[in-house]
Amino acid sequence: MSVKTSYINISTKGHGDIIDISKSVGIEVQKSNLTSGIVCIFVSGSTAALTTVEYEPGLVKDIKSLFDRIAPENIPYHHEETWHDGNGHSHARATLLGPSLTIPFDKATLLLGTWQQIILVDFDNRTRDRTIVVQIIGE
Amino acid sequence: MSVKTSYINISTKGHGDIIDISKSVGIEVQKSNLTSGIVCIFVSGSTAALTTVEYEPGLVKDIKSLFDRIAPENIPYHHEETWHDGNGHSHARATLLGPSLTIPFDKATLLLGTWQQIILVDFDNRTRDRTIVVQIIGE
Amino acid sequence: MSVKTSYINISTKGHGDIIDISKSVGIEVQKSNLTSGIVCIFVSGSTAALTTVEYEPGLVKDIKSLFDRIAPENIPYHHEETWHDGNGHSHARATLLGPSLTIPFDKATLLLGTWQQIILVDFDNRTRDRTIVVQIIGE
Repeated sequence: MSVKTSYINISTKGHGDIIDISKSVGIEVQKSNLTSGIVCIFVSGSTAALTTVEYEPGLVKDIKSLFDRIAPENIPYHHEETWHDGNGHSHARATLLGPSLTIPFDKATLLLGTWQQIILVDFDNRTRDRTIVVQIIGE
Repeated sequence: MSVKTSYINISTKGHGDIIDISKSVGIEVQKSNLTSGIVCIFVSGSTAALTTVEYEPGLVKDIKSLFDRIAPENIPYHHEETWHDGNGHSHARATLLGPSLTIPFDKATLLLGTWQQIILVDFDNRTRDRTIVVQIIGE
Repeated sequence: MSVKTSYINISTKGHGDIIDISKSVGIEVQKSNLTSGIVCIFVSGSTAALTTVEYEPGLVKDIKSLFDRIAPENIPYHHEETWHDGNGHSHARATLLGPSLTIPFDKATLLLGTWQQIILVDFDNRTRDRTIVVQIIGE
């Protein structure tokens, strides 16, 4: 059993940008030389989040619409009184979806479904350079 | 320290079917012969999700209603343009709730609350046979 | 590699009380004498949840408002027919946000963003004494 720490760096467009990171995470698992275990993926930051989706252009739009309904951009946020940076909705969405995702792997392969991809959703209201921690624990 | 991989197979009715898998997960923990660690539960697929709830008939209905409000079935989804399978809402709901749940155990027992059960929620719009990965890491 | 189990006890005001537990979790990581791994934080109970946020007074209000919109207190819940304790909304919110959060650490430090704090959100409709499990796995 051992722990392998690595990082994925991604530039995003913000504004709900949804990026498929499945291949990058899979490469880190293979580089770890571990065959069975879990990978804990974590986005450091409070305006982005991680989950899975069937990554196809229709759902990419639908997920954006989902969050537009749940936490609209154009309603008042108290966060605005603190920072005046117009991204109260970005924080609310990221807090709801969550920064962490843990996925099992076996035979050095992530146990995702055929139509299931790992995504970073960047809710911030500007372009961002993101660091995703990939912490792999296994044997 | 070691890793034990097992699988739980479940047939669901889809349409927001909520199934208590606590007992099945607890049995896998006991079969692992590990006494302390974490169990990473993961549903392979993009229209189902995992969380916890007080599993009683009232809340089972309330959780379905919650998702009917958040991501209604009868609004337009762009996913429909890709696949024409009528389950855009299923994907949106599963992506929001998430496919992964990590629960600690000690003395070979899951550290759940008394009124807290682990549930699979199948949001797809048809019956499904689901595979849930149970990855146990501990000593 | 080893596992260290510890607990954080917190008294909350309920009603969406949001408490920053980052420092407490960080102390447990340092006490574990492990340098690299993951910490699985889990709230035992079905009316509270864990996530991260930029912990500042504006967002604390905004997160409460978010859940007031998603799962209002004053709509009918079937849970009420079972228990008559008026906290159907508390369960719905906790189930949506989730009881579990897994965070990587390295050099004995949680890999959180600068403006990212770990929070317990207590959705129950009364004061509560909460136990949070902190399961640390690493080397």
